[in-house]
Amino acid sequence: MDIARLATRDPDFWSRLSRLTSWEGVSDHAVATAVHEILEAVKTRGDEALVEFTGRFDRMSVETAADLEIPQARLEAALAAIPAAQRQALEVAAARVRAYAERQKLESWSFTEADGTLLGQQVTALDAVGLYVPGGKAAYPSSVLMNAIPAKVAGVAQLVMVVPTPGGEVNDLVLAAACIAGVDRVFAIGGAQAVAALAYGTAMVPRVDKIVGPGNIYVATAKRAVFGLVGIDMIAGPSEILVICDGATDADWIAMDLFSQAEHDEDAQPILISPDAAFLDRVAAALARLLPTMEREQIIAASLRQRAALIEVQHLEEAAAVANFIAPEHLELSVADPKALLPLIRHAGAIFMGRYTAEALGDYCAGPNHVLPTSRTARFSSPLGVYDFQKRSSLIFCSPEGAQTLGRTASVLARGEGLTAHARSAEFRLQD
Amino acid sequence: MDIARLATRDPDFWSRLSRLTSWEGVSDHAVATAVHEILEAVKTRGDEALVEFTGRFDRMSVETAADLEIPQARLEAALAAIPAAQRQALEVAAARVRAYAERQKLESWSFTEADGTLLGQQVTALDAVGLYVPGGKAAYPSSVLMNAIPAKVAGVAQLVMVVPTPGGEVNDLVLAAACIAGVDRVFAIGGAQAVAALAYGTAMVPRVDKIVGPGNIYVATAKRAVFGLVGIDMIAGPSEILVICDGATDADWIAMDLFSQAEHDEDAQPILISPDAAFLDRVAAALARLLPTMEREQIIAASLRQRAALIEVQHLEEAAAVANFIAPEHLELSVADPKALLPLIRHAGAIFMGRYTAEALGDYCAGPNHVLPTSRTARFSSPLGVYDFQKRSSLIFCSPEGAQTLGRTASVLARGEGLTAHARSAEFRLQD
Repeated sequence: MDIARLATRDPDFWSRLSRLTSWEGVSDHAVATAVHEILEAVKTRGDEALVEFTGRFDRMSVETAADLEIPQARLEAALAAIPAAQRQALEVAAARVRAYAERQKLESWSFTEADGTLLGQQVTALDAVGLYVPGGKAAYPSSVLMNAIPAKVAGVAQLVMVVPTPGGEVNDLVLAAACIAGVDRVFAIGGAQAVAALAYGTAMVPRVDKIVGPGNIYVATAKRAVFGLVGIDMIAGPSEILVICDGATDADWIAMDLFSQAEHDEDAQPILISPDAAFLDRVAAALARLLPTMEREQIIAASLRQRAALIEVQHLEEAAAVANFIAPEHLELSVADPKALLPLIRHAGAIFMGRYTAEALGDYCAGPNHVLPTSRTARFSSPLGVYDFQKRSSLIFCSPEGAQTLGRTASVLARGEGLTAHARSAEFRLQD
Repeated sequence: MDIARLATRDPDFWSRLSRLTSWEGVSDHAVATAVHEILEAVKTRGDEALVEFTGRFDRMSVETAADLEIPQARLEAALAAIPAAQRQALEVAAARVRAYAERQKLESWSFTEADGTLLGQQVTALDAVGLYVPGGKAAYPSSVLMNAIPAKVAGVAQLVMVVPTPGGEVNDLVLAAACIAGVDRVFAIGGAQAVAALAYGTAMVPRVDKIVGPGNIYVATAKRAVFGLVGIDMIAGPSEILVICDGATDADWIAMDLFSQAEHDEDAQPILISPDAAFLDRVAAALARLLPTMEREQIIAASLRQRAALIEVQHLEEAAAVANFIAPEHLELSVADPKALLPLIRHAGAIFMGRYTAEALGDYCAGPNHVLPTSRTARFSSPLGVYDFQKRSSLIFCSPEGAQTLGRTASVLARGEGLTAHARSAEFRLQD
């Protein structure tokens, strides 16, 4: 097996690590042009353009736009149709995701100062949110739960899901998940045309305030283009897992954890760090032995060959430093005392602590969100959460007394900046 | 005075309001091309390119890049040099902004379930942040406080400010504000080249994780281009004020409040809503009478002519509905009982309650941030705050028992999605 092997003692370690972990999202001029045309067409021609693009790109021939709506009854039918074990697992996962999300909810607050002036922050939910769900093989019911439930916990009244159904093929698990999560309306549309419909609104599709959910390069390009008119979530890069192991976890467990991200995508990045070189050898052997037994062997092999690494460090403190450089989407602390290591971790999307916490548990049902910052963006961003569907308004309610003291300060500063209307507006309220 | 007059009873009211309040940020192909070249040059040639661009655009001829750093001693000298009243006002404002920011700080949390599984969220500060401060006439010391203090309260270790100093002209108030706010390093650079230096890092300028602060179209275009590599704040549109008044506030006060945003910019948007048509007339008269007395008369007149409106509504509930459509940056509730009106307000950057709360107090020293969402983006975004300089990592620490129940659910869902490495990774931890 051809997996990169690095050690922090190598003189070129940091430059090699930097090259290995750097990822530039593809930006393609042809895609940008095509997306721009689709956005303009939906903006100006609405449902007519939507029907046309859906026919062209998804081989769906419908009479009217209304035929593209998937009614609530169809979601309920899907929920009734799926196997009982899957339904139960979806419901358990949904309940846990909801319980965790409830704890994230921001609350309004205010306080009153001695002179009677009130300051605070009013928290409200977004009115309407669009959820993009990819079609075909990447249609994951777990992603529906992870995106929809925080929005509903926040109090979003209108949650609109779009999911392409190429050739009319619908995924019952996805519709069942939408039903459990409480999605309000579902449309069988996808691509840049679905993003446009959500951002601008059409006669059929309600205009939303924010669009979340993963998609291909056309969807990502369209989301970036409408950012500002509506809010968007982060543009996700390939999935990553970084495991820090002290060498005492079963090597097969760690190998399978690395596979669990590698199987997503040839570009996915699985990395293992350990101070125990012999353990790195054992995991390498386990990877080689287990690989031929994997259903998604080709994808995993490509990911291991192109983007994986086994990294030897001096000690766990150094492992934390490497992890902070990488700022991984998923970080496993597979060590004897993960609580001792935790304070050294500054950047990670989600942290899986202890030998029993397989990253896959977090993907499905532990409770925290599986939509996480990738490509080193955990340096400045956070998992998707209830807070992404809430916003704040500052509150200021000056008492007549408060307006005196604040007004004098504001007047001095406004005049210092040459903004005399600001100054006079404050001075008008002064009572001497 | 030529100010648009609207009434909700007009049949074309909502379409007129929509046209009046719509704002499309300029996107200019020539600017994008120029910015792209500057970004590439700084990325590949670092400080050399920085010196070159600063010479060309800011007429600053320096020997080496190091000459572009403004040392800490220079900030302290500026603080010592400014008039005592201004220094005191800056310090009062800074203390109030800091006190409010402290209340916004997110804290880590966790909880343990019955089977010993721990779930939680670890909150950490960003490591390094870049603060863009415009040069010349738009260099506002209050903006330095508003951007820098929340970052410092969050715990950002490295706060790097960039401010162009065209022709070598430095603004002492800006440097004094940087000193009070605790900015760590200051560089006399600006434009797209400053954004590039912060995003990529150079030998002199530290690479940061997020860039905040307002700038011209080159700065905004550069920020948009580096978004993803680093975090950015919202791209701000022109300033707006919306006043809802019951008709019982002094018309001159309201007129001056409208001026206070109009004086920022010809494109700024001042709007007044009232159920009292006679009051709208009185404010119109006050605007006409006070306008010739204003230092920034030309700017204010252009703003009033192009973008202002006086809107008559049936009652205050309807005023709230209009305000929610506009989602204003600044909203004054200049009414007898603002607390009764507040629950009806769903979208606004900051809400100024009561007759004494001039919007200008919030711009300088009330405490809440003056960096607010513009152009209807308050529908989905929030004032700048401490939370913009913090990020969250999810925590999952499964007990061996917890891994059994969660593992079974994850296994069912992973197999439903065809992700068998995920399933096996969970199944490896099952103990039967």
